[in-house]
Amino acid sequence: MSDSKRKTANGISFASVPKVVVSRLSLYLRELQHLRAESKETISSGELGSRLGFTDAQVRKDLAYFGQFGYPGIGYRTDELVQAIRHILGTDIEWRVVIVGIGNLGRALLGYKGFSRQGFEIVAALDSDKEKSGSVVEGVEVQSIDRLDEIVKQHKIRLGMVAVPAPAAQSVADQLVAAGIEGIVNFAPVTINLPDHVSQVGVDLAIELEQISFTVAKRLHALRRS
Amino acid sequence: MSDSKRKTANGISFASVPKVVVSRLSLYLRELQHLRAESKETISSGELGSRLGFTDAQVRKDLAYFGQFGYPGIGYRTDELVQAIRHILGTDIEWRVVIVGIGNLGRALLGYKGFSRQGFEIVAALDSDKEKSGSVVEGVEVQSIDRLDEIVKQHKIRLGMVAVPAPAAQSVADQLVAAGIEGIVNFAPVTINLPDHVSQVGVDLAIELEQISFTVAKRLHALRRS
Repeated sequence: MSDSKRKTANGISFASVPKVVVSRLSLYLRELQHLRAESKETISSGELGSRLGFTDAQVRKDLAYFGQFGYPGIGYRTDELVQAIRHILGTDIEWRVVIVGIGNLGRALLGYKGFSRQGFEIVAALDSDKEKSGSVVEGVEVQSIDRLDEIVKQHKIRLGMVAVPAPAAQSVADQLVAAGIEGIVNFAPVTINLPDHVSQVGVDLAIELEQISFTVAKRLHALRRS
Repeated sequence: MSDSKRKTANGISFASVPKVVVSRLSLYLRELQHLRAESKETISSGELGSRLGFTDAQVRKDLAYFGQFGYPGIGYRTDELVQAIRHILGTDIEWRVVIVGIGNLGRALLGYKGFSRQGFEIVAALDSDKEKSGSVVEGVEVQSIDRLDEIVKQHKIRLGMVAVPAPAAQSVADQLVAAGIEGIVNFAPVTINLPDHVSQVGVDLAIELEQISFTVAKRLHALRRS
């Protein structure tokens, strides 16, 4: 288990990694980043798992897709595993992001501190409303969506966030694809269709509330029975 | 597998259900709601799983925590399983929600159509900035956070969303707990501490971007090798 040199992603195929494993990598990374902030230098798979509600076997199996990271009798070295997961997730390099739709959500996303902390830099903010052009939100100048192609090329932007109202989402996504964007995070509460070579994630904020209502409802059911 | 009468959550203990199973329930629910909108009346565990990247065994195992929902030779009845999962998640009743922090994110959340669609109604919007009191955002009047206790009791609110800047999040959460709120969704990019009897979920928007950067980075690695 000690050959940490084999941890990088370059040598292996990621094609077969289930989506759900990748989403757990993000959770491992956040927990490890917290641990590092607390100066905890090592952690076992069991401890990492139990902090997130997973078994140690799950943690080991997930990481085994990408290499061998643990040390016998030590566990994982926090700092090393943070670097390794960032490399796997591709966030050891900086990603430039364009956001389209500078309404309330767009403004909120521009002000969200969690993005740059994880390696995502919003370098352009576009809107179809010409009235907004020239205004500066969180240090980024709002520009017309007509300049999308030019701006994507100029800043070498690969990722886009769609924060427009639902009826406009597909058309904006099509424009992003035409401009060469390779991955889209869609915040509009509607499904968008993209060509296979463009990745997408849809953000559904109600899911978080459902996780909460489950626990509260569970407690209510238990009270009623007692 | 046909005793659908046993599907309700009342008779069983939910205490041992892992968090990750509950989060998959939300994904199943969304997919089933899409299927229902497409008038698809039944679906197999294999098909439901493959649409989400899970195995049929995973789907069956997750649902088995809560009862028996499938029919031999038929699979799941879409509409029935939607109702059952909503009951399990507690979203077959309406939840009243208070949101604290009416900045850009708060305004975006007030305008987010996905909440009411899933049974969450934001009935109160509070801010510490007295200047904002009396203004109406998306049909909800902004009020002073000083009125929190009174408003929570008056509207029988159980859930809260925290959309204030990170340094204020813990203090706002403490006020929500004192007012009797039972579950909190925290959008501030900071960890908050709550008593055990209050549920919480932290929303980390960068996770969605990481899922995208993973796929794009994977493609880039593959191109470089070819």
